[in-house]
Amino acid sequence: MTQEIPADSVGIVTPISQLFDEPLQLKSGKVLKSYNLMYETYGKLNSDKSNAVLICHALSGDHHVAGYHSHNDKKPGWWDSFIGPGRVIDTNKFFIICSNNIGGCSGSTGPSSINPDKGQPYGPDFPVVTIEDWVKSQALLIDSLGIDTLAAVIGGSMGGMQAMQWAIDYPHRVKNCAVIAAAPKLSTQNIAFNEVARKAIMSDPNFADGRYYNKGEKPNQGLMLARMLGHITYLSDEALKDKFGRDLREGEFKFHFDTEFEIENYLKYQGEKFVGNFDANTYLLMTKALDYFDPARLYDDDLGKALSHVTCDFFVASFTSDWRFDPKRSMEIVKALIDENKNVSYMEIEAPHGHDGFLMDVPVYMNGLRSYLDRVAAKLGVKQDAC
Amino acid sequence: MTQEIPADSVGIVTPISQLFDEPLQLKSGKVLKSYNLMYETYGKLNSDKSNAVLICHALSGDHHVAGYHSHNDKKPGWWDSFIGPGRVIDTNKFFIICSNNIGGCSGSTGPSSINPDKGQPYGPDFPVVTIEDWVKSQALLIDSLGIDTLAAVIGGSMGGMQAMQWAIDYPHRVKNCAVIAAAPKLSTQNIAFNEVARKAIMSDPNFADGRYYNKGEKPNQGLMLARMLGHITYLSDEALKDKFGRDLREGEFKFHFDTEFEIENYLKYQGEKFVGNFDANTYLLMTKALDYFDPARLYDDDLGKALSHVTCDFFVASFTSDWRFDPKRSMEIVKALIDENKNVSYMEIEAPHGHDGFLMDVPVYMNGLRSYLDRVAAKLGVKQDAC
Repeated sequence: MTQEIPADSVGIVTPISQLFDEPLQLKSGKVLKSYNLMYETYGKLNSDKSNAVLICHALSGDHHVAGYHSHNDKKPGWWDSFIGPGRVIDTNKFFIICSNNIGGCSGSTGPSSINPDKGQPYGPDFPVVTIEDWVKSQALLIDSLGIDTLAAVIGGSMGGMQAMQWAIDYPHRVKNCAVIAAAPKLSTQNIAFNEVARKAIMSDPNFADGRYYNKGEKPNQGLMLARMLGHITYLSDEALKDKFGRDLREGEFKFHFDTEFEIENYLKYQGEKFVGNFDANTYLLMTKALDYFDPARLYDDDLGKALSHVTCDFFVASFTSDWRFDPKRSMEIVKALIDENKNVSYMEIEAPHGHDGFLMDVPVYMNGLRSYLDRVAAKLGVKQDAC
Repeated sequence: MTQEIPADSVGIVTPISQLFDEPLQLKSGKVLKSYNLMYETYGKLNSDKSNAVLICHALSGDHHVAGYHSHNDKKPGWWDSFIGPGRVIDTNKFFIICSNNIGGCSGSTGPSSINPDKGQPYGPDFPVVTIEDWVKSQALLIDSLGIDTLAAVIGGSMGGMQAMQWAIDYPHRVKNCAVIAAAPKLSTQNIAFNEVARKAIMSDPNFADGRYYNKGEKPNQGLMLARMLGHITYLSDEALKDKFGRDLREGEFKFHFDTEFEIENYLKYQGEKFVGNFDANTYLLMTKALDYFDPARLYDDDLGKALSHVTCDFFVASFTSDWRFDPKRSMEIVKALIDENKNVSYMEIEAPHGHDGFLMDVPVYMNGLRSYLDRVAAKLGVKQDAC
């Protein structure tokens, strides 16, 4: 079936794989000798290269933010409704970049990639990566595109953490930073859920200490459990209730342990879909990067100190029903920025979806981010050059 | 090491195993031909048998509520600090009974018991049991003790659901019903967490479709995951933060996937401890009974209707930091009772522990329950007969 592509879509897009043949020094002390970054861009870089916007993806996201890879694509990129000509992040104004994080499984070098030293997939030999490492690799990517300064770096959830880290690590290369549905560090509960997810993966006998790529079976049961659990934390109690309630697939209790409630079926469906597209070792790496993120740690646990030398303006947004990263967590960021006399706009968005709200077409959220970015465009004087 | 037993403890107690040789008709339509109930009692039944209090246990609880099984016991029963001479549930006034639920793994007939038809453990052939079934078996137990009417039935969490069901199913055999940290039915999110726990157990290869008793290995990894996950939901975000924060076992990031944060270590410890004492098939049964509990279901989802014919007085209590069964869930019960002109006392207890608060020595909670039960004793004129 051929996809009818809307007029305000970025249309058909082609991912680019770029080799970085210089060693990347990682936070862990390890070095990645060379690596690929898979990325996409939308819109056009203007002549003074002032209109670049970097989008950072969340745990299960990738570089394919918007548009379609072909007319046969069933679904567009993961944040498509936000990106395109005239959309929230307007490709008539901005040149948008998003790369798959290293350690990922969507084209950038990760555990499923061939380790050049061994001629085998890295598996557990792939080094533990951090938010800082991702930001560093993204900086090298924009270097390679000839871009010195980003008009904005934007991210939701784990992407919001990368955006914050950008502002901290490259204060003179970011003009604006949008931190959406994020937190300045994971809570104890957040880490606890991540640990259960990791244990589910690692205790799957098919995990084989992470060396499962050349075997018949993958640790799909473990990864499925991890995803099911994650999914519960992405949605609000209320959203689950509204969507599934206590509905039974067959209308009555069956007194067995097969799928019976609609919510069970939904989680199963989400889990099964996920294991077809995602790598278990990548899941381990992404959750560990989340656990480690804590920019205040090097500053006596003082977030203000960690943010004291940022120079960009901030857009921070949270969602009322997000219990994974409660609005209070965003307020910690806002408070630290205000204490340090930084310029910050904050939106607490009334929405029922829970953490996943950051991906949703919530009008007040879309309008808020649009209006912020319109001001960014006006203030920086960015405009698309005439074609 | 010999245990120093406090003067206000019930002291050394001996569990009793009682055979019920009459078929038990279960809600599922299946029949348990005969079964054992393991139970304990504390205090003395008075001559008019009016001072009996039934305690119903929660998911991982059992019949051993108070006292010690021997002087070598390291720990007393699971609610010991509430039960004894002069304690909250005062054995100078009340005769207290608690039985292990059928389907359990602490002495009452359950999946690890020998199926008399096959000479092998029941395993997955043990029928799915419900809160109603448990209440029915408890009623038969008090029949066998010659008790017609309970001064009170008391339970926290899943125990609170059994207490509610008692009031509904045996309105003329219960004078008071204490429903603590419970809910009138599981939320969609509650069911979702239970399903992930069950899937963790059932996808453990050692689960062997539930027939693991005579094999070398048990589904310990799956049960451990279930318990770790459960544990997160029993504690509040704040309690986890206060107890473990983001503390690292070795003070710095290790860039590996072994136990690193203190919270990870705690969950591992809790999980490992649990699998030594609990049966995976029982975990499946208990969570399913929780999922099914919904007394309003037979009354057009009208909880008031379901409670319309109860005759006892109610004590309902919730804990502010309980996100498993939020105080709002208890308020649903209170509201339904008030709408039906029933007598209900309600306490919302300010406490940081989360759902586990119902097991904790929170003074305002202990005083509230004590004062309620003192009035019960006074109103019913129950007193211990002179020894």
